Amino acid sequence: MNTAADSWKNECWVVLDRIEGPVNLGFISRAMANTGFANLRYSGELDTEDEEARRFAVHSQDLLKSFKQVSRKNLLDGMDVVVGLSPRQPWSDGHDLPLDKLWVTLKSALERKQRVALLFGNEAHGLDNATLAHCRYRLALPTVARYRSMNLAQAVLVVLWELHRQSGTAQGVETSQPSLAGGAQREQMLLKLRHLLETTGYLDHQNPEEIWQEMALIFRSRDWSQREMTLLTGMVNKVLKQHLACCKEMQQVPRQ
Amino acid sequence: MNTAADSWKNECWVVLDRIEGPVNLGFISRAMANTGFANLRYSGELDTEDEEARRFAVHSQDLLKSFKQVSRKNLLDGMDVVVGLSPRQPWSDGHDLPLDKLWVTLKSALERKQRVALLFGNEAHGLDNATLAHCRYRLALPTVARYRSMNLAQAVLVVLWELHRQSGTAQGVETSQPSLAGGAQREQMLLKLRHLLETTGYLDHQNPEEIWQEMALIFRSRDWSQREMTLLTGMVNKVLKQHLACCKEMQQVPRQ
Repeated sequence: MNTAADSWKNECWVVLDRIEGPVNLGFISRAMANTGFANLRYSGELDTEDEEARRFAVHSQDLLKSFKQVSRKNLLDGMDVVVGLSPRQPWSDGHDLPLDKLWVTLKSALERKQRVALLFGNEAHGLDNATLAHCRYRLALPTVARYRSMNLAQAVLVVLWELHRQSGTAQGVETSQPSLAGGAQREQMLLKLRHLLETTGYLDHQNPEEIWQEMALIFRSRDWSQREMTLLTGMVNKVLKQHLACCKEMQQVPRQ
Repeated sequence: MNTAADSWKNECWVVLDRIEGPVNLGFISRAMANTGFANLRYSGELDTEDEEARRFAVHSQDLLKSFKQVSRKNLLDGMDVVVGLSPRQPWSDGHDLPLDKLWVTLKSALERKQRVALLFGNEAHGLDNATLAHCRYRLALPTVARYRSMNLAQAVLVVLWELHRQSGTAQGVETSQPSLAGGAQREQMLLKLRHLLETTGYLDHQNPEEIWQEMALIFRSRDWSQREMTLLTGMVNKVLKQHLACCKEMQQVPRQ
């Protein structure tokens, strides 16, 4: 079930003309599940119970099972707007649609509960002109020019993904914004670091500032999360403490 | 061959950790051909001559044949920036990247000929935490929430498609940039740092990885200029050397 925000997906049909490959059918099922589309109709001999189709549909077999097999002549019955996927544009009639206009073009039809068919042709032969003549829009996917031929299931995924993305429903993943360490916390760490670098002789006793200024800026010129600064501080503290303990113990042991 | 405009694609690698499915490998080859990417490296038992892989690679078998099989430990050799694909975000450190920021985030690195790895995990298991600790960025694809599990080849297609698409529109701001330290130089420094943290007991001998993964990511998740990396390396080397010398001297002095 889709939420109110993407209930338009219920009006959107994937329609496959003479599909042959069971792996493709399985992959398409999975792509639809990932992008939230639920309606598919196809012509061809394939069976939704096909073992290979089921295997590639991983976890989306219920969806696969719901796909409707129809005769070729009934393929577009009840569809209000048909978008035909084809790298060929047989007519210069302005009905070829750029991919990035897909959602804005279909939006009002879908929101008015018109049924939209995304129509894909046979794996080897694509859509013929007689079928393209049913399409209000023709859509060619902008692959690189030297390799235009696209796998059917992959073409379906790209179209569904673009609708999912362009419509704004593809925003489900939260990205984290960690809280940042303050300047005071950073300077505390730097004090300890400087102590360590002096103790180990990394900073020249005669002229410590020259290198130290550059070193400190490495840390001052970046944002650090609180967690990161805690880790860095702990690391510097531990190394400093161990080193000082080592040095001290050495001094207490009388030399031969 | 890519044109001057998309020569950055030559620096962009698809990297597959322990891939198992030949159909996936074939589909990935085709997706790369469609979107103009040419470099792939993988670990796992699969053979690029696999019959099923070749069958699903339709017309892109030359590309498939060029894929490089490497051992798992060499999977990320020479990569400067690693983007790990994972629906899981084990750390709240702000390194999770939204998909629509992918190109703007990677653009400057790619244009400066840094090698970028798009890293994908095994079909069933994804990327583990030890591997995610190598990733400067983690990317979760915004599928619909109720069906997050995505087929490997389909995830690769979406990421490549998005890079292909976003790079055509994103307008970057040019700023002066120092030359950056490479990933190999950074990993050298991290090796020494780890040695130091083990020697001083900052890393728990029983369970060093837990903290180390987070610590390493602090350095992997940022760009460092060559100068900065030289300073950091010098610092770690000096502290380590001094501390080891101290420890050694202490052992050589007979106790009372």
